[in-house]
Amino acid sequence: MARFETTLEQICNHLGGVCHGDSRQLIDAIEPIETAHKKAISFVANPKYGAQIDVTQAGCLIVSPALQDRALARGACIVTAEPYLYFARLTQWWRAQTLSLSPSTAEPLIHPSAYIHPTATIGDGARVGAFSVVAAEAVIGAGAVIKNHVSVDIGASIGTDSVLHAQVTVGEHCVVGARCIVHSGVVVGADGFGFAPNQGRWEKIEQLGRVRIGDDVEIGANTCIDRGALGDTVISDGVKLDNLIQIGHNVFIGAHTAMAGCVGVAGSAKIGAHCTVGGGAIVLGHLSVADHVNISAATVVTRSITKPGHYTGIFPIDDNGNWEKNAAVVKQLGGVRERLRALEQRTAVPTVDSSK
Amino acid sequence: MARFETTLEQICNHLGGVCHGDSRQLIDAIEPIETAHKKAISFVANPKYGAQIDVTQAGCLIVSPALQDRALARGACIVTAEPYLYFARLTQWWRAQTLSLSPSTAEPLIHPSAYIHPTATIGDGARVGAFSVVAAEAVIGAGAVIKNHVSVDIGASIGTDSVLHAQVTVGEHCVVGARCIVHSGVVVGADGFGFAPNQGRWEKIEQLGRVRIGDDVEIGANTCIDRGALGDTVISDGVKLDNLIQIGHNVFIGAHTAMAGCVGVAGSAKIGAHCTVGGGAIVLGHLSVADHVNISAATVVTRSITKPGHYTGIFPIDDNGNWEKNAAVVKQLGGVRERLRALEQRTAVPTVDSSK
Amino acid sequence: MARFETTLEQICNHLGGVCHGDSRQLIDAIEPIETAHKKAISFVANPKYGAQIDVTQAGCLIVSPALQDRALARGACIVTAEPYLYFARLTQWWRAQTLSLSPSTAEPLIHPSAYIHPTATIGDGARVGAFSVVAAEAVIGAGAVIKNHVSVDIGASIGTDSVLHAQVTVGEHCVVGARCIVHSGVVVGADGFGFAPNQGRWEKIEQLGRVRIGDDVEIGANTCIDRGALGDTVISDGVKLDNLIQIGHNVFIGAHTAMAGCVGVAGSAKIGAHCTVGGGAIVLGHLSVADHVNISAATVVTRSITKPGHYTGIFPIDDNGNWEKNAAVVKQLGGVRERLRALEQRTAVPTVDSSK
Repeated sequence: MARFETTLEQICNHLGGVCHGDSRQLIDAIEPIETAHKKAISFVANPKYGAQIDVTQAGCLIVSPALQDRALARGACIVTAEPYLYFARLTQWWRAQTLSLSPSTAEPLIHPSAYIHPTATIGDGARVGAFSVVAAEAVIGAGAVIKNHVSVDIGASIGTDSVLHAQVTVGEHCVVGARCIVHSGVVVGADGFGFAPNQGRWEKIEQLGRVRIGDDVEIGANTCIDRGALGDTVISDGVKLDNLIQIGHNVFIGAHTAMAGCVGVAGSAKIGAHCTVGGGAIVLGHLSVADHVNISAATVVTRSITKPGHYTGIFPIDDNGNWEKNAAVVKQLGGVRERLRALEQRTAVPTVDSSK
Repeated sequence: MARFETTLEQICNHLGGVCHGDSRQLIDAIEPIETAHKKAISFVANPKYGAQIDVTQAGCLIVSPALQDRALARGACIVTAEPYLYFARLTQWWRAQTLSLSPSTAEPLIHPSAYIHPTATIGDGARVGAFSVVAAEAVIGAGAVIKNHVSVDIGASIGTDSVLHAQVTVGEHCVVGARCIVHSGVVVGADGFGFAPNQGRWEKIEQLGRVRIGDDVEIGANTCIDRGALGDTVISDGVKLDNLIQIGHNVFIGAHTAMAGCVGVAGSAKIGAHCTVGGGAIVLGHLSVADHVNISAATVVTRSITKPGHYTGIFPIDDNGNWEKNAAVVKQLGGVRERLRALEQRTAVPTVDSSK
Repeated sequence: MARFETTLEQICNHLGGVCHGDSRQLIDAIEPIETAHKKAISFVANPKYGAQIDVTQAGCLIVSPALQDRALARGACIVTAEPYLYFARLTQWWRAQTLSLSPSTAEPLIHPSAYIHPTATIGDGARVGAFSVVAAEAVIGAGAVIKNHVSVDIGASIGTDSVLHAQVTVGEHCVVGARCIVHSGVVVGADGFGFAPNQGRWEKIEQLGRVRIGDDVEIGANTCIDRGALGDTVISDGVKLDNLIQIGHNVFIGAHTAMAGCVGVAGSAKIGAHCTVGGGAIVLGHLSVADHVNISAATVVTRSITKPGHYTGIFPIDDNGNWEKNAAVVKQLGGVRERLRALEQRTAVPTVDSSK
């Protein structure tokens, strides 16, 4: 990032909050509270980390009203009801300032080496990087940025102010909404995985649907979203997908759901809105997951989930020797239960356990 | 997809089956039975979904002889012994018809911006997209299609009528067979992961083998197939790999095996023919898996499997609170078995359980 | 690979070791001992595989002193204290010899189709392939090789003698050290996954840090390493990452740690030096893992690990029917323990088991 320097006053002018201490103080970095230096601004989102306030070197802290006194005792602070949200907006503003200092903005709006089909439509202010391909009948919204080696195939459309980073592929007739960020290596609209068995061989089911991605969606590097077989794969507004995620054909993901890296969602699964899915989790095909469900990392969703809540299925990590011992018993648990039941009967223990 | 309209008569002329009802009926879409509209054709592959027949709006249904009467009671139908296979072929024919309407076919056979080494061999009717790279001594079969930003490295060969989608990489001397479909972001022939330990550091073992991919193989987006260390990594005819799969060096995958997304197969594993591997499963290195084995999603194959069958190893998903309770006991199962055994001895229960 | 032929004498001249038998013998391949033909050289790294010596067709075997007599009884051998390391170096030397025979070396140092920003710095002997992009202020070290369709963004730096294979992306201001190998499809420096919740929506936290990769690092195909939110993501010297690995923002990986394919490391995790992580393992965020820790494949690291050792957490694979039975009991283990405890009390068994 280009070097950038500002004052607490300027920060509060742009982002609000109440500045306490010397508002002309210079700030040249946003840093974590543990390692912040004297010209850095940092934040305390959680009151239970209040003790860090006393020892940080940060020049200014973003804090909630409850921590104002403690923060002020050691230097400048910005007080706001939601410090973490304030921090997020500070990073956005900071990035906008540093970008405006960067020479990359001097590049042409449409790079001469890019290949754009004459039937494609490019909105005002859209920028296309070197060696990108925009195929026939594609539509690129105003203000969109298409970086190096991107392919936007025939009939696809990219919404206004969306950014496609280097090496992204958007397949034919797929739709990316407005203000989306699509990171490098993402593949939108490859064929879904559909085959009919035919005498020991697999007969391809052509994937005739599309991918439709809503507004304000972010898609992490090398993530894949397959086109529908019949009908579309749908990623709703505000969804955030991390890197290396697989979204199968005809999956529906509800608005504002977030998934961490390496998640796999099999075909035709329907994930609700406002869900979170931890890294490496797998959701099997044709299941439904309700709104406001949280799936832990590495959990395998093998049945539909109809109620909001937090769901987990992970084999607990252990020293390898202990694991071997315990895993051996796991493979005999049916027998263990039988033996327990027999013992209970033999010793005449009355039981109401439903697991019998 | 370009708009396409046909009649039931034309469908049956091309694909067979017996048309009942008005064969001049117009069809403009293939749709799932639940959401099909009046000009759509749909299918019922499984007799247990027969009740959907009575309520669908579809203009025509593809059904087995057993469902003919029920289907006919509500409108036109095409009767065939294998409705799902018929559906698969209908999608293929449909796609061919719509493609022939698409402007992309008007593009040049070899795009002027592509870089092709003078020693490369390109078959009749092969098409190379914008900014592809075909390096020295590569061979591209007749009718092959090489899309944007593809790299085919020195000495590699691509079989007749195969399609390499945008951003594919085929490494040096690797072989892709005929009629293969390789989706965007696939990497064929990166180095396998091989290192010799040397005083706390890793010494690279150069990967001197190739990848050899048979005919009629489909490889999903961003999947990686590493070259062999010594000898080759082999993907046999008719194998279907979904997205984001990792195939390690010197793996062998038998004919017509299918793997769902996010599977990882470690080096030198040998997977049989006609197997299926569920999404997110992991196969450890140097193992053998017999023909006709089905591995459930997210299962870890830690030992060779010598008999056909269905194998699973997943920690069951649960409400997080229950999971915590049960997972704590999992870590004590060795002790639980000891206690059970002690109890059995103390209460003089005779046991023949082999799990002791 | 181009055809290459040498003698045992030449091998020993370059790599050391003591040659026994006819040193003028011609060798045209390195092959696994099971399938080696008469002009191939092979190796026996582990004395327990000594029996293979008696039956192999290999023209020469690389063995330790302990196996010298057995190897010599059947033909030529090279004796060295560390046969596996010798083998690794032989593959390196072999590849260098075959590369020098390959026409690809005749290609220009910087390909005319590559796009290089006028402010970028390119070291002596660096080579840039077709359609690469080197953006403003990037620095490419001497001897580095940048292949087709690579993007090196503004301010990034690539160390001397590093190789970036086709379709690699190195984001702005990221640093790749010397002698690194970065395989196709790798994305270095995409945004980390950081959002602040805001009334049911996600507010982006701009990722203002970089990725810093040390020397002698190898990164497998389609692996992603995200830039830090504040501060940097750090991959230390000598780290080896396999394919399709996800490294979250602000992760630190210690020197000479190796990770197999499909591993996911969540944000701010700190992995020690000289660790190994098996394929498909997941490390949750903000954890610490000590030096010299070995994590088994597919294990989920849910807590920090402070002591060297071998750690595992995998649900054991089983026939699907058995699995179903045992998995059902897993979901009742809390109850099983209760019942066991009740039985123990009822039968007056004294217990010192801490798991109560």
